[in-house]
Amino acid sequence: MLDAGIIGAVGYTGMELVRLLHGHPGVHLRAISSSRHSGQAAADAVQAWRGRIGLNFVAHDDPIFTNCDVVFIAAPDKVSMQHTPKLLEQGVRVVDLSADFRLADADLWEKWYGCAHTHPHLLDVAVYGLPELYRDQLATARLIANPGCYPTAICLALLPLLEQADLIDVSDIIADAKSGASGAGRTAARELLLCEVDQGFRPYAASGHRHLPEIRQVLAKIAGKPVNLSFVPHLLPMIRGIEASIYVKSHSTPEALRESLERRYRNEPFVDVLPMGEHPDTRSVSGSNLCRIAVHKEADSPRIVILSVIDNLIKGAAGQAVQNMNIACGLPETLGLESLSVLP
Amino acid sequence: MLDAGIIGAVGYTGMELVRLLHGHPGVHLRAISSSRHSGQAAADAVQAWRGRIGLNFVAHDDPIFTNCDVVFIAAPDKVSMQHTPKLLEQGVRVVDLSADFRLADADLWEKWYGCAHTHPHLLDVAVYGLPELYRDQLATARLIANPGCYPTAICLALLPLLEQADLIDVSDIIADAKSGASGAGRTAARELLLCEVDQGFRPYAASGHRHLPEIRQVLAKIAGKPVNLSFVPHLLPMIRGIEASIYVKSHSTPEALRESLERRYRNEPFVDVLPMGEHPDTRSVSGSNLCRIAVHKEADSPRIVILSVIDNLIKGAAGQAVQNMNIACGLPETLGLESLSVLP
Amino acid sequence: MLDAGIIGAVGYTGMELVRLLHGHPGVHLRAISSSRHSGQAAADAVQAWRGRIGLNFVAHDDPIFTNCDVVFIAAPDKVSMQHTPKLLEQGVRVVDLSADFRLADADLWEKWYGCAHTHPHLLDVAVYGLPELYRDQLATARLIANPGCYPTAICLALLPLLEQADLIDVSDIIADAKSGASGAGRTAARELLLCEVDQGFRPYAASGHRHLPEIRQVLAKIAGKPVNLSFVPHLLPMIRGIEASIYVKSHSTPEALRESLERRYRNEPFVDVLPMGEHPDTRSVSGSNLCRIAVHKEADSPRIVILSVIDNLIKGAAGQAVQNMNIACGLPETLGLESLSVLP
Amino acid sequence: MLDAGIIGAVGYTGMELVRLLHGHPGVHLRAISSSRHSGQAAADAVQAWRGRIGLNFVAHDDPIFTNCDVVFIAAPDKVSMQHTPKLLEQGVRVVDLSADFRLADADLWEKWYGCAHTHPHLLDVAVYGLPELYRDQLATARLIANPGCYPTAICLALLPLLEQADLIDVSDIIADAKSGASGAGRTAARELLLCEVDQGFRPYAASGHRHLPEIRQVLAKIAGKPVNLSFVPHLLPMIRGIEASIYVKSHSTPEALRESLERRYRNEPFVDVLPMGEHPDTRSVSGSNLCRIAVHKEADSPRIVILSVIDNLIKGAAGQAVQNMNIACGLPETLGLESLSVLP
Repeated sequence: MLDAGIIGAVGYTGMELVRLLHGHPGVHLRAISSSRHSGQAAADAVQAWRGRIGLNFVAHDDPIFTNCDVVFIAAPDKVSMQHTPKLLEQGVRVVDLSADFRLADADLWEKWYGCAHTHPHLLDVAVYGLPELYRDQLATARLIANPGCYPTAICLALLPLLEQADLIDVSDIIADAKSGASGAGRTAARELLLCEVDQGFRPYAASGHRHLPEIRQVLAKIAGKPVNLSFVPHLLPMIRGIEASIYVKSHSTPEALRESLERRYRNEPFVDVLPMGEHPDTRSVSGSNLCRIAVHKEADSPRIVILSVIDNLIKGAAGQAVQNMNIACGLPETLGLESLSVLP
Repeated sequence: MLDAGIIGAVGYTGMELVRLLHGHPGVHLRAISSSRHSGQAAADAVQAWRGRIGLNFVAHDDPIFTNCDVVFIAAPDKVSMQHTPKLLEQGVRVVDLSADFRLADADLWEKWYGCAHTHPHLLDVAVYGLPELYRDQLATARLIANPGCYPTAICLALLPLLEQADLIDVSDIIADAKSGASGAGRTAARELLLCEVDQGFRPYAASGHRHLPEIRQVLAKIAGKPVNLSFVPHLLPMIRGIEASIYVKSHSTPEALRESLERRYRNEPFVDVLPMGEHPDTRSVSGSNLCRIAVHKEADSPRIVILSVIDNLIKGAAGQAVQNMNIACGLPETLGLESLSVLP
Repeated sequence: MLDAGIIGAVGYTGMELVRLLHGHPGVHLRAISSSRHSGQAAADAVQAWRGRIGLNFVAHDDPIFTNCDVVFIAAPDKVSMQHTPKLLEQGVRVVDLSADFRLADADLWEKWYGCAHTHPHLLDVAVYGLPELYRDQLATARLIANPGCYPTAICLALLPLLEQADLIDVSDIIADAKSGASGAGRTAARELLLCEVDQGFRPYAASGHRHLPEIRQVLAKIAGKPVNLSFVPHLLPMIRGIEASIYVKSHSTPEALRESLERRYRNEPFVDVLPMGEHPDTRSVSGSNLCRIAVHKEADSPRIVILSVIDNLIKGAAGQAVQNMNIACGLPETLGLESLSVLP
Repeated sequence: MLDAGIIGAVGYTGMELVRLLHGHPGVHLRAISSSRHSGQAAADAVQAWRGRIGLNFVAHDDPIFTNCDVVFIAAPDKVSMQHTPKLLEQGVRVVDLSADFRLADADLWEKWYGCAHTHPHLLDVAVYGLPELYRDQLATARLIANPGCYPTAICLALLPLLEQADLIDVSDIIADAKSGASGAGRTAARELLLCEVDQGFRPYAASGHRHLPEIRQVLAKIAGKPVNLSFVPHLLPMIRGIEASIYVKSHSTPEALRESLERRYRNEPFVDVLPMGEHPDTRSVSGSNLCRIAVHKEADSPRIVILSVIDNLIKGAAGQAVQNMNIACGLPETLGLESLSVLP
C-alpha cells in the first residue's frame, strides 16, 4: 500500500486525483493540501466528499508530504518548483502535474512562463510522463513531469506516424484543438462564468499558447527532427473533454496511417484506434483514462485528418498521473483506472 | 409592404424566419406552411408564438404562396425543387434556404444528394445568395440560392484573400469548423438528444460533408481557379453558432491579410474584422446577422489562421435570406436586421 | 425622441438594457456608465457592440446623466441611492433596477440589506414598477422601483387570485422558484463558473432570500391583508429564465382560477394565460417581455399549482424597465418590446 | 462471483448498470440484451465500451438469462412483466427497474399505466427496493421492484419524519421535484432534443405523473395512514440529477426535524444529512449512490422545507438496484458503490 499525498487538492485536477486515489486499491491517500483551506476539514470544503474523505487540508509545505511514498503536485505553475526539490531529497517520488518540469530547456521555459526557472538542473532529472513513449524511463523515475492536456491528445495522435521516417510531412502539421472549461482551472474569473461560456465557442491564444513549445518538443523528440506544428486551442461550452483534429500530409493512404496507429497501440491499455469510418466522441472517454483516435480523408483533399479525444482531467491530467505512479511504483499499470466512461 | 410566405416554418430555420419577418417593418407575413401541422393554428404548435402569430399553417403547395411577393423555402432538401418552378412562373421571388439550387453542376448535386435534380435548368437562373460577393446579381434575382451555414462562415473569411492573386496559397487550405446543434435540424433523432450532445464534442462527416462541394465551388469562383480545401465539421454542445478556424499559407504577414479583409469589408454592414490580437466569440454574433473575423499567427508557424464566427441560423440561414430579400426587393439592405446580439 | 442613460451598463441587466434601448424607436441612448470601464469605448469592452454602439463609458456620476430625460440604474444595490436624489432634483425620471427603493419600510430594508437607507423619504416617492398592478401611478411616476425578477414571476401569478377576496387561502402559499445563472450577476465568483453550475441544480437561500420581503409586501398590498408565503429559490444550469411553481389552496376549481387569471389579463400585452392542460416553458418567453401562466391540479390533491415563467433579464428586469419608461413617458406601452422569443 | 444479466442494456439506466456491474468486484456480467441491437457486438453500438465490454447483445428472452444468478430488467414498462415470471420459476433473482411491480394494487397500476397487469399475483411477491425502509425483506427477496427516481428522492426525505407520529402534518405535503433529461429515457423524441431542452426549464405532468401513486403508496405505508402529497415534476436542462424541495408543516423546529433525519440515517451508507444552513447540490451526488438531505426554514413562514438530491441514474435507478442485489445476494451492501461523485 502506497502512501500518497496531493499538493493542491481543490483545483479541478486535484479533486480528480482525490477521486481516483480514493478508489485506487493500492493507495492510501494520506495528505492533501490547499493554500486557501489549510486547516479545514476537506469534507467541509467539498460537499461531495462528506462521509468519504476524512482528511483535513494541510499547507503545501507540511512535513507530512515528506513521509509519503509519492506526492502529486496539482498546484499552479511555479508552485511545484518550490516544493519538489525537498521532496526528492527525502526520497519521495514526485508526479508533477504543473508545467514546471515539462520543458527540457530552461530558457524556453522562461520565455513562455515569464520568470526564471529556479531549479533548471531538475529538468534533466524529470521524465516526461507519456507512458506510451517513455514507459521504460518512467519505471525508474523519481520526478515525473506529467504532460499537459493538449500535448497528450495531440502527441498520442501523431506518435506512431512520426516514429516512422517520412510517413507524414513534418513541415506543416495543423492541430486544431478544443477543450472543456475545466482545463482553465477553478479560479474565479469573469470570462469563465457559466453566463460567459455556455452557448458560446471561441478560439483563444491563437498567436501562441503555452502548450505549443511542449508539443513541439515532444514531437521533435519522436521524429528526431524539428516538426512544424500550428496549434490553435478553443474553449468548449462544457466541463470535460478535449478533441484535437490534426491535419497531416502524407503519401500514404488513410488506411495505412490507421494501420500504423493500430499496430503501435495494439497493446496499449489506454489508447483505442477506431475502425475506418468512425468518429470519436469526447463523451466516449469522459470519466475514463482512454485516448480514442480515428483517421479520415476527404476525396480530392491533400490532407488526412487524425481525430483524437481524451478526458482532459483524466488521460490529460490526473488519470495519466496515476498511470505514471503505477509504472514508477511497480504496480499494474491499469490499477485504479479500469472504470468505464460515464454515460450519458 | 411586401407579402411574404414561408414554406416549412416549424424547423429551426423556418422559426427563425418567422421571428425575423415578424419584426421586419417592410414585410407582411402572409402565409406559413408545415407538412406536419397543416390546418393547425401556428400558435398552438409553437407556444412562443401565442398572441403574436395569428396565422394557421397551410400545406406546402397552398395557392396562397403564389399570391406572395416573396416566398422563403426552409423545407428539407428536395422539397424546394418541387415548389420553386410554379412559384417562379407566377412571378413570385423565391429565396431557397435548402441546398437544391446552390450547386451549379447538376451532376455534382446528384452525386452528393443522392438523386437526380428535377429542374437543372434553374441552376443557371439561381443567384447564390452571398451579398458580399453577388450583391449586384441579387438585386435582380428571381431565384436566390441561400448559402449553407458552413459555406457562409468559411467563404466570408477567405473571400478578400482569394480575390487578390497569390495572396494565399490555394493548394492547401484547411477549414476546421464547428456548429451548434440547431444546424442539424429539428427532426427527432437519438444522436441529437440533449443526453447525447450535451457535455460532448465530436467531429462528423470527416470523410466528406455535403457542404464541401458548395464551399469549393464558391472559392473557385472567387479565385478563378480550383482551390484545394480540407473541411471537417464538428458538433458543439450548444444551440446556436458556427466557428471556423481556417489555416492558410501566405508570404504576407498576418497584418497584411487582416488589412485586406478590413479594406474589402469596410462598407459591409454585416462583416466585422477584429483588431490584431482579438479572438471572435460565437456569442458576440448570437442573435445578430453579423460575421466576425480575426487573423492570428504563431511565432515559427508556417500558417496564418483566419477565425470566423456567425450565428448559423441568422447570417448562416434566415438572416442572410432576409438580407437577400431586402436587396432583391429594393429595400434597405439592413432593414429588420439591425438588432444587437443577445447577451448573455 | 427620449434621451436615455444607463448607470451600470456592463452587468447582465445593463447589457440587456443597451440591447433593448438600441432597438427602441422612441429612444436615443445617450450615455452609459461603468465604474470599471469608465473612459473606454464601449465596443472595446463588449465585442458584440462593435460597430453598433459608438458610446464611451462614463463614470456613474457623470453630469451627462442629468441632461437625460430618463436614466436607468442597473448598478448593484446601494449604488442607486447615491445617484437617484440628484437626478430627481434635476428633473430626470429614474427607473431603478436595483432593490434600493422597492421596500416601503426603511427598517425592513435595513434588516435585509444590512445597512441604513440613506434616503428613506424617497421610498414614498417611488412607484413599484409592476404595470399590471400600478399602471396609473406609473404614468406620472418620477422614480420607479423596478421589481425583482422572482417577485415579478410570482406576483403576476397570484395577482388576480388575491384581488378577489377568499378565492385562495392566504395563510399558506408556497412558491418554489428557479432561476438561470444570469440572475446572479456578472461578478467573478467561483460558485458561478461554468464548471460549478453546469450539470447541477441547487436550492439556495432557503432560510430567507432578499426577495422574500418584497414579494410579501406586494402580495399583502394586493390582498389587503398579510399573505403567508414560503419561497425557496434554486439555481438552474442555464443562462436566462425563471420558473415559479406556486401551490395554493382554494375552494374553487382550477378552471375557475384560470378563468380569473384569463379575465384579469385579457388586455395585458405581456401576460399570457395558457389553456388548461398546457405547461409553460421558460424558452417560450426567452428574449421576450412575456409572462406566461398555467394552472394545474392533480386528482386527490389539496393543492392547485400556478406555473409562471418569465425571462429574468427582460420581464424580470430590463424589459419591464422599458415598459415602465414607456408608460411614464407617454409612449405606447409595447414600443420596442414586441419582438418574438428567440427559438431555439 | 455472481453471474448477472441485464435485460435492456442500451437505455440510460441499462448503460449505467453495465458501468456499475463492470466495476463490481463480486459480479461477472454474463449477458446483456437489446431488442434493437440483438446479435450485434455491444462495443459496436456503444463507443465507450470498445475494448472493455466484450459481450454481444442477445434478445430479451434469450435462455442465457435463466442461467444467471440475478437479472436486472431495465427495459420499458410492460416488458418486464413478460420476462419476470419465467426467470423467477428458474430460480433467478430479478431486480426490476421498471414500474411493473412497484404498485401493490393491480387496479391502480392499470389506471395509471393504461393496460391490465398480466401477473398481479407477483405484486405480492415483489419487495419494494428501498433499502432504508425494507432492508430485512430485501435480504430474502426473489423479485425486487426497484423504486422510481422521484419516489426515491422524495421518500428518503420524508421517511424519518413520517415514522414518528405527528411530527409533520400529513394532510398537505408539497413536493416540487426537478429531474435531468436522462430520466426521460433514450428514445428519439423531438421534445428531448438538445435544442428543445437546453437553456430552458419546464414543469410537466403537473396534473398527475405516474410516480404520484407510487410515492403516495410508500408514504402511506410508512405513516400508517394516507398522506396527502402534491407532486409536480420539472425538466432540467442537464443530463443527471434530481432535486426535490418538500414543504411540510410541523410543530417542531427545523433543528428537530434535521435531528430526526440524522438519527434515522446515522448508519445508512448512502444517505447524508447536511448540517443546518447548508444546501445540497445535485452535483455533489452525481456519479455516486448518495442521497443528500438538508432542512431549512424561513422566518415567519408556516413551512419547513426538506431538500433532497440524488443522481437519478444511480440512487434513483442502477445504483440502488446494485445495492438491492448486494443485500439480496448476501454481499456487503456498499460493494461496487463506493466511488466518489464525479467533480466537476
